[in-house]
Amino acid sequence: MTQPMEAKRLNFFMDKINGNFKKKDILSLDQFDPKSLSKLFRTTDTIIRKLKRKKRLTSLSGKIIALLFFEPSSRTFGSFASAVKRLGGQTIEVQDVGRNSSVAKGESLSDTIKVFESYSDAIVIRHPEKGSAKIAAQAATTVPVINAGDGTGEHPTQAILDLYTIYQKFKRLDNLTGLIAGDLLNGRTVHSLIKGLSLYKKNALYLLSPKSLGLPTELMNNLAKKIRLVEIENETDMPTNLHFWYWTRVQKERFKNLQEYKKVKNRFIIAPELVVKKGNQHMIIMHPLPRVGEIDPRVDDDERAVYLKLQVPNGVYTRMALLTLILSRL
Amino acid sequence: MTQPMEAKRLNFFMDKINGNFKKKDILSLDQFDPKSLSKLFRTTDTIIRKLKRKKRLTSLSGKIIALLFFEPSSRTFGSFASAVKRLGGQTIEVQDVGRNSSVAKGESLSDTIKVFESYSDAIVIRHPEKGSAKIAAQAATTVPVINAGDGTGEHPTQAILDLYTIYQKFKRLDNLTGLIAGDLLNGRTVHSLIKGLSLYKKNALYLLSPKSLGLPTELMNNLAKKIRLVEIENETDMPTNLHFWYWTRVQKERFKNLQEYKKVKNRFIIAPELVVKKGNQHMIIMHPLPRVGEIDPRVDDDERAVYLKLQVPNGVYTRMALLTLILSRL
Amino acid sequence: MTQPMEAKRLNFFMDKINGNFKKKDILSLDQFDPKSLSKLFRTTDTIIRKLKRKKRLTSLSGKIIALLFFEPSSRTFGSFASAVKRLGGQTIEVQDVGRNSSVAKGESLSDTIKVFESYSDAIVIRHPEKGSAKIAAQAATTVPVINAGDGTGEHPTQAILDLYTIYQKFKRLDNLTGLIAGDLLNGRTVHSLIKGLSLYKKNALYLLSPKSLGLPTELMNNLAKKIRLVEIENETDMPTNLHFWYWTRVQKERFKNLQEYKKVKNRFIIAPELVVKKGNQHMIIMHPLPRVGEIDPRVDDDERAVYLKLQVPNGVYTRMALLTLILSRL
Repeated sequence: MTQPMEAKRLNFFMDKINGNFKKKDILSLDQFDPKSLSKLFRTTDTIIRKLKRKKRLTSLSGKIIALLFFEPSSRTFGSFASAVKRLGGQTIEVQDVGRNSSVAKGESLSDTIKVFESYSDAIVIRHPEKGSAKIAAQAATTVPVINAGDGTGEHPTQAILDLYTIYQKFKRLDNLTGLIAGDLLNGRTVHSLIKGLSLYKKNALYLLSPKSLGLPTELMNNLAKKIRLVEIENETDMPTNLHFWYWTRVQKERFKNLQEYKKVKNRFIIAPELVVKKGNQHMIIMHPLPRVGEIDPRVDDDERAVYLKLQVPNGVYTRMALLTLILSRL
Repeated sequence: MTQPMEAKRLNFFMDKINGNFKKKDILSLDQFDPKSLSKLFRTTDTIIRKLKRKKRLTSLSGKIIALLFFEPSSRTFGSFASAVKRLGGQTIEVQDVGRNSSVAKGESLSDTIKVFESYSDAIVIRHPEKGSAKIAAQAATTVPVINAGDGTGEHPTQAILDLYTIYQKFKRLDNLTGLIAGDLLNGRTVHSLIKGLSLYKKNALYLLSPKSLGLPTELMNNLAKKIRLVEIENETDMPTNLHFWYWTRVQKERFKNLQEYKKVKNRFIIAPELVVKKGNQHMIIMHPLPRVGEIDPRVDDDERAVYLKLQVPNGVYTRMALLTLILSRL
Repeated sequence: MTQPMEAKRLNFFMDKINGNFKKKDILSLDQFDPKSLSKLFRTTDTIIRKLKRKKRLTSLSGKIIALLFFEPSSRTFGSFASAVKRLGGQTIEVQDVGRNSSVAKGESLSDTIKVFESYSDAIVIRHPEKGSAKIAAQAATTVPVINAGDGTGEHPTQAILDLYTIYQKFKRLDNLTGLIAGDLLNGRTVHSLIKGLSLYKKNALYLLSPKSLGLPTELMNNLAKKIRLVEIENETDMPTNLHFWYWTRVQKERFKNLQEYKKVKNRFIIAPELVVKKGNQHMIIMHPLPRVGEIDPRVDDDERAVYLKLQVPNGVYTRMALLTLILSRL
């Protein structure tokens, strides 16, 4: 009697295009809803449980995943490579497609994708241009395409690992109050996370940033009905009962007025003092990484600091879950 | 009683050098004759049949193939990587040997090859200089070397996949009439294909190119006795009963006189109109890729267009067959 | 009754840090003593024996080894990749971390290592800066780090393969007399080899180099009590009963006075004539590679020349042994 659940899963992780089934492309967090995220997170839980029991996972055994990286990103590259290999799969890796390939000879992205479609069972694409993942997905007619970051566009698996890390800690994604700090204007990571949390009920977010780096007005207006957003400009305004702090980097290069940068840059650093003053026992401290100074390394040993201890491994586990759901079954 | 056939296979895919057996290097299409090509193509047929039945192939299980790419070529790289991994083998990949290696420190190609010989069971080499594959093969005394393109020299596995694609469609490689269009002066792909077809009886080729980019006279003279070659300069001279069109790129940079380039460049594009006007129901449209404008993407959906739909996957399958015959048995 | 021996092995290849066990980092040859080297070499012997019998080795099956190369080194990269794969393991490969990664965004080495720790079961690091391997090892709290060369620092697995090659030939590492020639001032390879041989009794080394490129005085003084060192400046002073010649490159760029370089450069080349004049039947001729002219290729066919025939494959076998002892059991 697993038929109905199986059917439901297929429903989400399988698309029907012009009458043909195609395994689902993962291009944006917008494709997900609480139901499909829940399925993904339960699969992640299962994978973690099996790994802890030293079970050998084989859901990608015999499968080849192309990792086409049109720009450098060793972190995301390594995470996907690890996910594929821990599931018994193999990779075809081109870490600098622009330089190493027919692309240099003037080939279109669509043709490159159509070629690698013959080489693999799925394509993970990282590309500096917004919208390129969608172009790739349209070109690939038989294998699924996973967006591993397309410029200022989306990076859905980063958002998924962030949401999973919060879920893992609190066993829910509703009724949470968090802080998101740093550059809220430019960060695609931050935008996706806020959108993700807005899918769930009764969440609230404090947005801590210099005025010039606040959440884009359009996004603010779109989300205002779905999630409570409170802009603050000073750590002293931070409540002490937050569930999570999600910190990002304030990028000096974004400031035209260096005086203003200097004014805010020291305020936006997590040091042990801030954790003592504003933290609470149950919260977690998150960061998408890489960090360049905005979290004092002395905080790393704090068990609430999960950017290295949980977010990074969860990146592998959630990608394992996603690949398994799309390409196989556990 | 499979002994004699086994022996014959070994005969072709095994060399005896100074009394020692060495698995055969694949350096040039010239090494092949109809008999060995037939063996290779039947093995390719078998591999395709097994893959369709979802059979797991293991002929390279436990084997390591070094992919030494001294110049970028993501397409050929990916095709070999896929071939090795679909056969259960593993790769050692250096995608930019010149920059990443002892070569940068002044090491000779022979020494580099002798080193990688200790790391692998076969070496696939891509190199910008003509003759380098042969140097590599002479350096490697225990493992076979496969030429994946040596500059203006040879690219035998490209020629093999082209021949196989024609064979797959027509179930023969004799009694065929085709068209080869574009730059016939410089294309190593085109030269190898013509040589390959000249091994079989009663083939004819129409050669469509601007005068300045015609087949080199020496090659023309060498092949004239073996295959009927008809030079034309205009699509209006194309017969309508051709078995295949093999299109290549006319490279602007080859023209000294830009006026002449402008005169011909628009004639040498396949658009749906040309297919309607000069095509027939049973023909196939081929291209070695990458293309940069010389085939209108609207042609892609035509089922006769096989450059993406058949040539690319056949590149993987024929390389799988070749690796299997050299290194193992199916 | 294998308990005690197992315990001893764990003792060496396992560290206890702050009460937690961690598989041993391999940072320097100084960590080894004759006992642990003996264990390593016996494991290497076993591996070679099993490979000769075509036994499939699986000691890294299910394991992922990250190869983080912050500078190019195709030889060491290929050797480690081959070692991992011949043991059934998989790799995560970043061949140019500096350019391809978060490092380019300003991430610290420690953070990069902590991230890749989540992706793998061990990290092999190559880095241009002395001391970086140690920093990496301190950052990694759960997986072992293996130094594959840190600038002018150490390259322990190169030293191990050199020592093993001598051991393999003479079945001992004491009571040997060898020659080390070339640049003894700058070569980390040479320094490690001398240190390694000084762990054993009754060894003697002739040191052949131009005055300006002699062994650093400090090292000379440190080792003088442990091993007999005889500096010579001329091949005519070479005894004919040496067990091994270990040749390295005299680097032109080290000389301020080009006249002096010209004076010595031709003396420091091994040609067949020197082998006839100063060699003996049982010796071996070694070189860490790459070579750039200092060994005449005509010497390669001499069976005493082991730089390509034994040192390179032994590099793979000793790394296989090391990885097996650290991560698994055979």
